[in-house]
Amino acid sequence: MNTIITIGRELGSGGRTIGRNVAIKFGIPYYDREIIDKTAEESGLAIDFVKSQEQKISAFYKLCMGMSYGYGNQLLSLSSQIYQAQVKVIKQLAEQGPCVIVGRCADYILKDREDVLRVFVYSDIEHRINRAVNSYGMNELTARKEIQKSDKERARHYNLFTDSIWGSRENYDLMLDSGYLGLDKCADLICQVANCRR
Amino acid sequence: MNTIITIGRELGSGGRTIGRNVAIKFGIPYYDREIIDKTAEESGLAIDFVKSQEQKISAFYKLCMGMSYGYGNQLLSLSSQIYQAQVKVIKQLAEQGPCVIVGRCADYILKDREDVLRVFVYSDIEHRINRAVNSYGMNELTARKEIQKSDKERARHYNLFTDSIWGSRENYDLMLDSGYLGLDKCADLICQVANCRR
Repeated sequence: MNTIITIGRELGSGGRTIGRNVAIKFGIPYYDREIIDKTAEESGLAIDFVKSQEQKISAFYKLCMGMSYGYGNQLLSLSSQIYQAQVKVIKQLAEQGPCVIVGRCADYILKDREDVLRVFVYSDIEHRINRAVNSYGMNELTARKEIQKSDKERARHYNLFTDSIWGSRENYDLMLDSGYLGLDKCADLICQVANCRR
Repeated sequence: MNTIITIGRELGSGGRTIGRNVAIKFGIPYYDREIIDKTAEESGLAIDFVKSQEQKISAFYKLCMGMSYGYGNQLLSLSSQIYQAQVKVIKQLAEQGPCVIVGRCADYILKDREDVLRVFVYSDIEHRINRAVNSYGMNELTARKEIQKSDKERARHYNLFTDSIWGSRENYDLMLDSGYLGLDKCADLICQVANCRR
């Protein structure tokens, strides 16, 4: 198996669990939150700062776009610095060989490589809420709010840093509804496709 | 295998070939252009008229929306009549048992049934042009124009008659890039999912 697998996912869809299981199955590295540490190292910014801004980078960036000088420029520069460091980290990870990378626009960042399988995992909101409630012990109302907030943030972040739309088919080779298919079947299909591809 | 499989597809993606192969594999009926005959029968309109309007129903319908009386109302009534007849035909076909239905908003029309696997097949435009040139003998420029025109028409048609967006992930359980995966692998994945589901 010589494929780098990127997994974009909706919050609560189980994309991370699926990604981890695919990585275990192939015995290849899995990168998700590990990228934060490497990004902090690359950018010279504190881990906690990168962590706090990374998921909110869009609102943060958007705010900066409306400020033309002073503090606005400073924020813009930091926001862009985090993204550029993440691009560098993701490209370096891909250079090291087959791996699974979850989120962080990796499908877009690696779109010019031939050896990438770009997956997107999604589901209807009820399945996602159930998963958040049952797997993470959240209450239903909080889960619904967090999911809706996350959808907006991820979409804005992706749309801002790429020239494309988060979750839109032209960015992915395989798109799986984990609510319909189940997490195991999703992992199984990804492994099959990665295996038979190259 | 107790599943009804609907396949939405972009022109040139090979969705029809994939659908036909899935139907052959399971030994179940395949419905595509056959629906035109049944729709004509159901609506009492001529087959040639249904055929000519069916792919253009959106532009036709849109035109009608701007006309408030007279000829506009007549067109609107005919357009709606074709769609309603198609809804009835598709629901009747689904009642008869497992089958493959290609296009015609079948995923939306059957969305309340539990026994439906809703697939969308797509690809980048270069793969689609190659397919049109190699399989149907079209020249490249014509193929490109026809594909772009078809994308617009199918999207408008779907968006107008449903309350959703053509090719958008919330309407499908499985979305396959046939340019990346190849037609055989697409058919294989659909069969696997339909087989293991219920």
